[in-house]
Amino acid sequence: MTATFSLDHARSLDAADSLAQFRARFAIPDPLLIYLDGNSLGRQPLVASALAHDLVERQWGNDLIRAWNHGWLELPERIGAKLAAILGAQPSEVILADSTSVNLFKLAVAALRARPGRTKILTDDLNFPSDFYILQEASALLGQGHTLERIPSPDGIHGPLAGLLAALDEDTALLSLSHTIYRSGFTYDLAALTAAAHAVGALVLWDLSHSAGALPVNLSLARADLAVGCTYKHLNGGPGSPAYICIRSELQSDLHNPIPGWMGRDDMFGFQPQYAPDPSLRRFLTGTPPIFSSALIEPGLDLILEAGIENIRAKSAAQTAYFIDLWESLLKPLDFALQSPTDPTSRGAHVALSHPHAAAIDQALIHAHAIIPDFRPPNVIRFGFSPLYTTFEEVFRAARALVELTASKSYIPFQITLPKVT
Amino acid sequence: MTATFSLDHARSLDAADSLAQFRARFAIPDPLLIYLDGNSLGRQPLVASALAHDLVERQWGNDLIRAWNHGWLELPERIGAKLAAILGAQPSEVILADSTSVNLFKLAVAALRARPGRTKILTDDLNFPSDFYILQEASALLGQGHTLERIPSPDGIHGPLAGLLAALDEDTALLSLSHTIYRSGFTYDLAALTAAAHAVGALVLWDLSHSAGALPVNLSLARADLAVGCTYKHLNGGPGSPAYICIRSELQSDLHNPIPGWMGRDDMFGFQPQYAPDPSLRRFLTGTPPIFSSALIEPGLDLILEAGIENIRAKSAAQTAYFIDLWESLLKPLDFALQSPTDPTSRGAHVALSHPHAAAIDQALIHAHAIIPDFRPPNVIRFGFSPLYTTFEEVFRAARALVELTASKSYIPFQITLPKVT
Repeated sequence: MTATFSLDHARSLDAADSLAQFRARFAIPDPLLIYLDGNSLGRQPLVASALAHDLVERQWGNDLIRAWNHGWLELPERIGAKLAAILGAQPSEVILADSTSVNLFKLAVAALRARPGRTKILTDDLNFPSDFYILQEASALLGQGHTLERIPSPDGIHGPLAGLLAALDEDTALLSLSHTIYRSGFTYDLAALTAAAHAVGALVLWDLSHSAGALPVNLSLARADLAVGCTYKHLNGGPGSPAYICIRSELQSDLHNPIPGWMGRDDMFGFQPQYAPDPSLRRFLTGTPPIFSSALIEPGLDLILEAGIENIRAKSAAQTAYFIDLWESLLKPLDFALQSPTDPTSRGAHVALSHPHAAAIDQALIHAHAIIPDFRPPNVIRFGFSPLYTTFEEVFRAARALVELTASKSYIPFQITLPKVT
Repeated sequence: MTATFSLDHARSLDAADSLAQFRARFAIPDPLLIYLDGNSLGRQPLVASALAHDLVERQWGNDLIRAWNHGWLELPERIGAKLAAILGAQPSEVILADSTSVNLFKLAVAALRARPGRTKILTDDLNFPSDFYILQEASALLGQGHTLERIPSPDGIHGPLAGLLAALDEDTALLSLSHTIYRSGFTYDLAALTAAAHAVGALVLWDLSHSAGALPVNLSLARADLAVGCTYKHLNGGPGSPAYICIRSELQSDLHNPIPGWMGRDDMFGFQPQYAPDPSLRRFLTGTPPIFSSALIEPGLDLILEAGIENIRAKSAAQTAYFIDLWESLLKPLDFALQSPTDPTSRGAHVALSHPHAAAIDQALIHAHAIIPDFRPPNVIRFGFSPLYTTFEEVFRAARALVELTASKSYIPFQITLPKVT
């Protein structure tokens, strides 16, 4: 190893890191565990413990039904406004609701209905599989002959930008993409693609699950129409925490929620048999939100707002670049192939490497090295860097562990692997 | 007051109550607060506090992503199986998912698709308003000319049994009703209506929100096709806790989830672009469930299973009968009208009273008497009795407070009222 690839060098990077103090704001019960899966489930902000206690004992246990009038009813907007600040939207343009897939369904149906006569839905083949399921089913349900066109990536890593631009036409109702690709981390130029879709009169629906909290999304600047995303990855909202819906202000009153509920009705306590949508984005709410899982999102958002999304992006770009440098010098010779973009502007906050023995290597990292990355079949390991708690030393140690166990083939006992989770 | 209507008599009923010891299993930080709104939000089981701590600190904070393989993935079925035991279904027939309205949407769409050519959806005008919204929108989305027929109740209290039986015909695709009516507490004979619907080849979709946990539902005995319901009322699952889906075993493989997601896919970690449903009821899952709000349902279910749903029903029937006796003697002369069935077999676990000054009386009960019932505009107060923690003394004290404040007109300062919540 050269001087650059040393523990001392990694530590000097940590010493110069202006976000280093945020690590102490998270629960890290085992400081030797290297957690590189914040892109699947972010760590627990320390203050979430006290908040959970308050939610159960005071709000539920003591305040009971009265708590609805002391904050629970407004929770979807209150959390939404903080999300909006992270996503570069207006506070009234983001609201917490349901799961990413349910929200994608609502917005896809609403968007297709808002572009009658157009039959094309465009996406790429790198999008998250369940986004395909939803787009297919939403169009099947409408029964108006929509087709879902999945433009293939040229290399399985980069989004098919040229193909998408060529396919966008006057028949396109909806362009729906993941902003950051779950597998490679490739990140689209959200503003450029939004503008291209608008040029042909199509609507755009972004899935921000893998970019929100990792980089500035700037929805308003891009005039992005619609977006959804989860809150449990880079936003550190807790396991399965509810998702969000973003709708650009100018579009809100024209879009119709296909799953209307009492939470989104104008005069929600009037108990009228006919639906009338709330004038605000609440119209896209449906049922009663899960209060614990919703309220516990807030500590993670507060930490991101305090740190600043631009600062988070700068550190994440430095960490992915550092890891790619380590790969280039140390891991490429050991049969690891880079499955993420080398261009830092089109890269998210995780780096994917493939290897013929990736499944066994992933298990060996977890069980022999106490390093948790994320395996994606058949042969990809994703390494997620979470600037608020991942240190450069951890990035270095992860690369060093990969060198050690691959060079010595010490992953061989782990050839039998178990399923893992997003 | 006669001897029967005395504090001593109420206390003698409590002394003879075999479920009395369950009150100590709930958090009751203010023993003087009389909470008669467990039909909106059930009280907090004591053990929920320790569970919340474990969920945040050990499962999220320490186990991180690994917790998915140590219980979170199976949470929808595990909670579902306990719900099934309460609802009289097979363990594989109930699963936790989303909100009541989202689930109603999924099942309504699936049911209408399973009865092609039939255009009638039957319900009554006592059903919960958001159930109408969903039934209307599900049929509009399918665009196959379905009509929603709302059979009117003869008196605003009782379900229109004769009208429903007369309207059921060979054109009926779906009969969808609330098992227990949210306003009056009227409870349908679920088995009889299910049989009548089956006789004309229609499917039945029950909303169990106001009956589950309060009385035996016996889904299997009735051969009920489909059901949904919330868990935060009589099931004591916590604010906005997720809802459930019940599908009779024989129907599961023929029904298609219109909002398919990764949680319901066969081989969920295969990341295939085409959807293929899980062979089990998981096929009706969509996105990642909110873990805190899901897991915290379990303590409430455990208490119901321990107490026994038949015992709970017996006490609840005794409490509503006692309250109706008190009404008959003491409140009827003070302009309170009973808005619930007198027949105990068609009554749920709450009693509704109307009064010309109901809104002010409700506020006076809350703010001057520390009694929390539930107001339903324009003029109804619902009194919910939760056998696991409501005492007969509380039932008596509530009636006595109504007498005192109505006779003395001491509710007058409360004429300006605030909105309240389900």
